[in-house]
Amino acid sequence: MNELDRLLRADLRGRTAYGAPQLDVPVALNTNESSYGVSREVIDAILTEVEAVASTLNRYPDREFTRLRTDLAGYLTRTTDVHVEPDRVWAGNGSNEVLQHIVQAFGGTGRTALGFTPSYSMHPIISGVSGTSWVDGMRTQDPSRFDIDLGLAVEQATEHDPSVVFLTSPNNPTGTALDLDVVQAVYDAAPNAIVVVDEAYAEFARPGTPSAITLLKGRPRLVVTRTMSKAFAFAGVRLGYLAADPHLIDLLRLVRMPYHLSSVTQAVACAALEHRTTMLSMVEAIKAERDRLVAGCTDLGLRPVPSDANFVLVGGFDDAATTWQALLDQGVLVRDVGIANHLRITAGTPDETDAVLAAFSTVLATARGADERQETA
Amino acid sequence: MNELDRLLRADLRGRTAYGAPQLDVPVALNTNESSYGVSREVIDAILTEVEAVASTLNRYPDREFTRLRTDLAGYLTRTTDVHVEPDRVWAGNGSNEVLQHIVQAFGGTGRTALGFTPSYSMHPIISGVSGTSWVDGMRTQDPSRFDIDLGLAVEQATEHDPSVVFLTSPNNPTGTALDLDVVQAVYDAAPNAIVVVDEAYAEFARPGTPSAITLLKGRPRLVVTRTMSKAFAFAGVRLGYLAADPHLIDLLRLVRMPYHLSSVTQAVACAALEHRTTMLSMVEAIKAERDRLVAGCTDLGLRPVPSDANFVLVGGFDDAATTWQALLDQGVLVRDVGIANHLRITAGTPDETDAVLAAFSTVLATARGADERQETA
Repeated sequence: MNELDRLLRADLRGRTAYGAPQLDVPVALNTNESSYGVSREVIDAILTEVEAVASTLNRYPDREFTRLRTDLAGYLTRTTDVHVEPDRVWAGNGSNEVLQHIVQAFGGTGRTALGFTPSYSMHPIISGVSGTSWVDGMRTQDPSRFDIDLGLAVEQATEHDPSVVFLTSPNNPTGTALDLDVVQAVYDAAPNAIVVVDEAYAEFARPGTPSAITLLKGRPRLVVTRTMSKAFAFAGVRLGYLAADPHLIDLLRLVRMPYHLSSVTQAVACAALEHRTTMLSMVEAIKAERDRLVAGCTDLGLRPVPSDANFVLVGGFDDAATTWQALLDQGVLVRDVGIANHLRITAGTPDETDAVLAAFSTVLATARGADERQETA
Repeated sequence: MNELDRLLRADLRGRTAYGAPQLDVPVALNTNESSYGVSREVIDAILTEVEAVASTLNRYPDREFTRLRTDLAGYLTRTTDVHVEPDRVWAGNGSNEVLQHIVQAFGGTGRTALGFTPSYSMHPIISGVSGTSWVDGMRTQDPSRFDIDLGLAVEQATEHDPSVVFLTSPNNPTGTALDLDVVQAVYDAAPNAIVVVDEAYAEFARPGTPSAITLLKGRPRLVVTRTMSKAFAFAGVRLGYLAADPHLIDLLRLVRMPYHLSSVTQAVACAALEHRTTMLSMVEAIKAERDRLVAGCTDLGLRPVPSDANFVLVGGFDDAATTWQALLDQGVLVRDVGIANHLRITAGTPDETDAVLAAFSTVLATARGADERQETA
């Protein structure tokens, strides 16, 4: 054993680092990024904001990112019908970082985090880094469905008495939004837990899907996380945030690194929030492509899962890993999320939807041809 | 007790968040920032780099920040006479984050981190957030001196068998660089430790002070951390980095959040590194002001500690807290670092040195006047 491996924290030994492939391919639909670049209008706004702070970059950032918190609170207030005050908002370098702040403050060695698998693969990783034990909860007894069964969730929350519970709505990688009844029931069943509802994909939900932000009042242990990576098409900026009780946020200040959000990040995020109409203008188009992916896959005899996100989990492949490689050979990169017979595809541009459906069609025809040759051999 | 306080990790209860005051004063010399703003030449380079990445901010950043690591490796190679390969470089949002990666990977509950107090106040905080026990080591038996006594350091390293050791050179808040003999001796005395030499202020050291980077070869457990916040005058950008064994860096990938460095941060840091001559052009001027502060304080009968940094720890005050407030009343913000009779003052512009020395002079005269009035009363 390498000397350094011997010194590594025992519970990290044998782990492999998170690693979605970063490959240069014509059609990259594997990390739920937006396929639409930032517009000239917003680039100009970004440059104006960066220029305004550039000469004072010798100084530390505003540790409390006051303007950004105010802008994020305004955005949530406008889009959720809940008045969100700036002192209920917290942000970090990606929602991974705000999730990390939560498990650092409320998890740790000897404590348990509960999530319902399959879900966002970073929840167990972030928990593990802080030494928090991870419980892989079941979503349902029926392996062909991915909705969380309320009774089963309550049972597991009661059994494990977790310190942190992760719910994801819309869920990644399965795509469907969560009934808020489940959030309320799990909150009540886990009286010692911070209950996190990860709403990274909330802006893509089908009409009439309420945000868990509507549940915050009277629930000091509830946290709703969001990101600018998806609907805002701003993955490169790394800006995640959350809404929660102001005192909970005060406790996160005990574990955040001081000045964790750079002056440039604050400025660039504010520029995007100011131009939110432009930034979010492709959301409806992406939802239309998602729905077209669902319809096209159904037509091909595949089994897409109902989606409220900017991606579709598609079932019905004989062998997901083989199909993944066959698609990549055609220049289409999707995500094998480790669910048997399923692949996850990000909804992109109309051309990308065409490319994916054409590639599926080719791959399925080739597989069918091989089957037939085998039968006649 | 508030419900949330009850749920907070037990070992965090009762702590207060890190909080150097962010006050708007004419002379801010409390956080060892550079007093010199970013020049027009570098602002233009920053804007060019940001514009180049802006349209693709819909995509996640290069998770391996390849260009930035190459540029940082080049900078270290140029300035330390050691050839540093890019795979020996790691970076984060401020050196706090790279320090956090180290304790997350090699510390944790049931393990111990050793530092020699007084030193950088974030070392125990970062260790504590990861659940690592902190040992407040002694620098010397003589409380009037702040140099680390080699024998005493070896003794404590042997006694506590730490998983992480923090050495700081030049030390903050005392200012003096560390003899590399101490680094070697502590490394040998702590065979189960990652030994971190925090060189945040290295560029300000007096001539002939070698970097611990010269010791990396053959010492896989040694890590040298640096930052662009100080000599590069880039505190607002939050870019810290380290040099270490490539395999050690591989293990840090297990605990970092994926895509932790934004595309904008990578671009802006590369712009500054490209213009390093301009960015570092004020280092000599700041060192001259530091030396003038030392001389001026000596003339006033105060006791400055020899400094290799961009600040001076000054002793000889009857009551540091009272003096701190009296200086603030005159518009001069310095740092009360909690060492009896001492205050830490950042070296800034010539005008700021004049202002500090004038304020000291006034405060000391007032104190002397009060003493005399008391004696004659």
